[in-house]
Amino acid sequence: MSKELNIGLFGFGCVGEGLYEVLEQTTLINASIKRIVVKNIKQRSIAETNFSYDAADILEDTSIDTVVELIDDADAAYDIVIDALRRGKNVVSANKKLIANHLEELKNTAKENGASFLYEASVCASIPIIRTLEEYYNTDSIQAVEGICNGTTNYIFSQTDQGKSYEEALSEAQKLGFAESDPTLDVDGFDAKFKLCILIKHAFGLNVNPEEIFNYGIRHVKNEDVQYGKEKGYRLKLLSSVFRDGNKLTTLVAPQFVQEDHPTYNVHDSFNAVAVKGLFSDQQTLVGRGAGAHPTASAVLSDISALQYEYKYEYKKEAGVGDLLISDEKQILVYIGSVSSEALKEIRFDEIVEEYSGNGYHYKTGYISITDLKSVDFNNRPDLFLALLPLPKENKLEALDYEELTHILE
Amino acid sequence: MSKELNIGLFGFGCVGEGLYEVLEQTTLINASIKRIVVKNIKQRSIAETNFSYDAADILEDTSIDTVVELIDDADAAYDIVIDALRRGKNVVSANKKLIANHLEELKNTAKENGASFLYEASVCASIPIIRTLEEYYNTDSIQAVEGICNGTTNYIFSQTDQGKSYEEALSEAQKLGFAESDPTLDVDGFDAKFKLCILIKHAFGLNVNPEEIFNYGIRHVKNEDVQYGKEKGYRLKLLSSVFRDGNKLTTLVAPQFVQEDHPTYNVHDSFNAVAVKGLFSDQQTLVGRGAGAHPTASAVLSDISALQYEYKYEYKKEAGVGDLLISDEKQILVYIGSVSSEALKEIRFDEIVEEYSGNGYHYKTGYISITDLKSVDFNNRPDLFLALLPLPKENKLEALDYEELTHILE
Repeated sequence: MSKELNIGLFGFGCVGEGLYEVLEQTTLINASIKRIVVKNIKQRSIAETNFSYDAADILEDTSIDTVVELIDDADAAYDIVIDALRRGKNVVSANKKLIANHLEELKNTAKENGASFLYEASVCASIPIIRTLEEYYNTDSIQAVEGICNGTTNYIFSQTDQGKSYEEALSEAQKLGFAESDPTLDVDGFDAKFKLCILIKHAFGLNVNPEEIFNYGIRHVKNEDVQYGKEKGYRLKLLSSVFRDGNKLTTLVAPQFVQEDHPTYNVHDSFNAVAVKGLFSDQQTLVGRGAGAHPTASAVLSDISALQYEYKYEYKKEAGVGDLLISDEKQILVYIGSVSSEALKEIRFDEIVEEYSGNGYHYKTGYISITDLKSVDFNNRPDLFLALLPLPKENKLEALDYEELTHILE
Repeated sequence: MSKELNIGLFGFGCVGEGLYEVLEQTTLINASIKRIVVKNIKQRSIAETNFSYDAADILEDTSIDTVVELIDDADAAYDIVIDALRRGKNVVSANKKLIANHLEELKNTAKENGASFLYEASVCASIPIIRTLEEYYNTDSIQAVEGICNGTTNYIFSQTDQGKSYEEALSEAQKLGFAESDPTLDVDGFDAKFKLCILIKHAFGLNVNPEEIFNYGIRHVKNEDVQYGKEKGYRLKLLSSVFRDGNKLTTLVAPQFVQEDHPTYNVHDSFNAVAVKGLFSDQQTLVGRGAGAHPTASAVLSDISALQYEYKYEYKKEAGVGDLLISDEKQILVYIGSVSSEALKEIRFDEIVEEYSGNGYHYKTGYISITDLKSVDFNNRPDLFLALLPLPKENKLEALDYEELTHILE
């Protein structure tokens, strides 16, 4: 009934190894791994005869129709993926950095060569968010996508919520294997931004260069900031957000204080969640594990299984993209905390709502545009901590159309 | 780019009316309502010339290509839907009772006549669960589907959790429009069962007669039962559940005490949530509003929008259904509370785990098969309250394969 797939696998870390074992054992997926290419010779769980150290051994093997790319290095991954697609091989990848930076080219190459390029594992691991955006939200009616797309930072915030310091929480995450020894990509919000770029493509059809999007992470959070949230019943989440208003998309990655009514409020530890608000589909939230070998391998398996049915992303929303663009002009409501009242004075608020000084800590809340946020290098300012605040009801970052629809329907 | 749809609408209650207004105003969906058929003449928000009182005015109008059926009466809905499909018209319906009872016939009729029959609104209103099961879980690898599929009962349990009696909570739900004046379908678990039948079809490809499935609702819950849960950190949820083990599906609708790690623990009020556990896709949870005019109209709009792209359900999983069947032999762990210790003695537990008597209330917990549960007419036993309990870890109602996979991948 379904097509047999001959797979060439790049990378044999824990995801690659898990994938190999499952495909060896299951009869549910009609696919087998013909060759594995890795970088270095070392002792591995399966015989060395399975391995090769030359990418050409997969790429030039015409009996291999499907490449699964599970290596860390985004540049090397690019060379592999583009070559495989040019040869008309299907590709499954989990590499968000690669995809965020080269999606347009990879997509076009796949199309020109009749290949399928699938990457569900690249965003929120096992959560089927790309497929859902592709298949369910098939008109140009999405108003907002917002979610926790990085399990490491959510794990750390779950710990700081319970009173641990950032440093303690990070070191615990590293011990548990949730965080890399150099955690920059995670804790400065880059990983969450790469995923956001991919979400924007599938939600709105728009190509975004990651450099266009403001990203700020979590490494400068202090106990005082967590305390501020606690007193107000808020929890901190690192959110990847995009909201549509007419032809403008407001988008950023930043910590956010969320209230109990927010769909991510109860999403803890390494879980991810993505909320999608559509004009015709209400607000939906998808929750699942967002980090770790198993959730990532799960999504890769789902893609492989979809390839058996010759599934391809159709990018239907590209057709309706029109004059849609990223805009940084929207004023957002933020909290900025600091040990230094002088440091806070540098920030160009358009409107200050609250100011507090006491016990050696200071904060301001108020409205500021993303353009002005971009003028400060927050990730390199250990003296500041920035987080978005829930907007007052009358001022929600929602497209007006949606509110209108709500009136009509209720 | 997309096909224009000419719609004939049956029913003009709050969902139908909201749908009409949105379609009048939006330019995003290329569809217009040509005629509305209602049962009775009465004062309405739009001119009487829009209405007709004879189903033939829609069914026999060859310029109408799409029927949207939003009436209460499942028998009348059957006549309309089958006739429309026979004429090759597309049909969108939200009528779970109709669909649970006649899906096979309606599906085949649609296929024979080249029509599309969509019904996302019939299960969990705005949550895109049918589409997700169709499009993402496209192999025979689903292990379990479990969720809160009825907003009325979830609202009532959210209230009893806060100390209200069942009667107070029900009357409040009725005032708010969440519950019908005769709430039987909701509070005895029939509505949740109809939805479960539809989920089983799209998750496993299997046709199920609703009468095969044990359903028990919430109307006999007492404060003592809620108290029992509270002491153990549990919350009550009415769950529609199906678990696969080899070629057997264990399935039922019943209240369940859930722990904090359960995906529905924090799903309150009229919200719905469905968790899907797949062999190759980890566990995913979809959360959204499950009751009310707006969420229902949203799902209907999503289906109409999908029709523009000529979307059809493919029922891919039918091909892999093999010897799959519903089995009631599995022992499940339950709590049964009663004011009468005599009443509890009637229950045929296979193994009793706990027994308690005190302050005029009694309960037993233990293992019992669904076959034995079916021998008691629980919905008509005000002296008993039944709820499933979380299983001890080593004994989870999960297919073994999944556990194996977890080992392999972690």
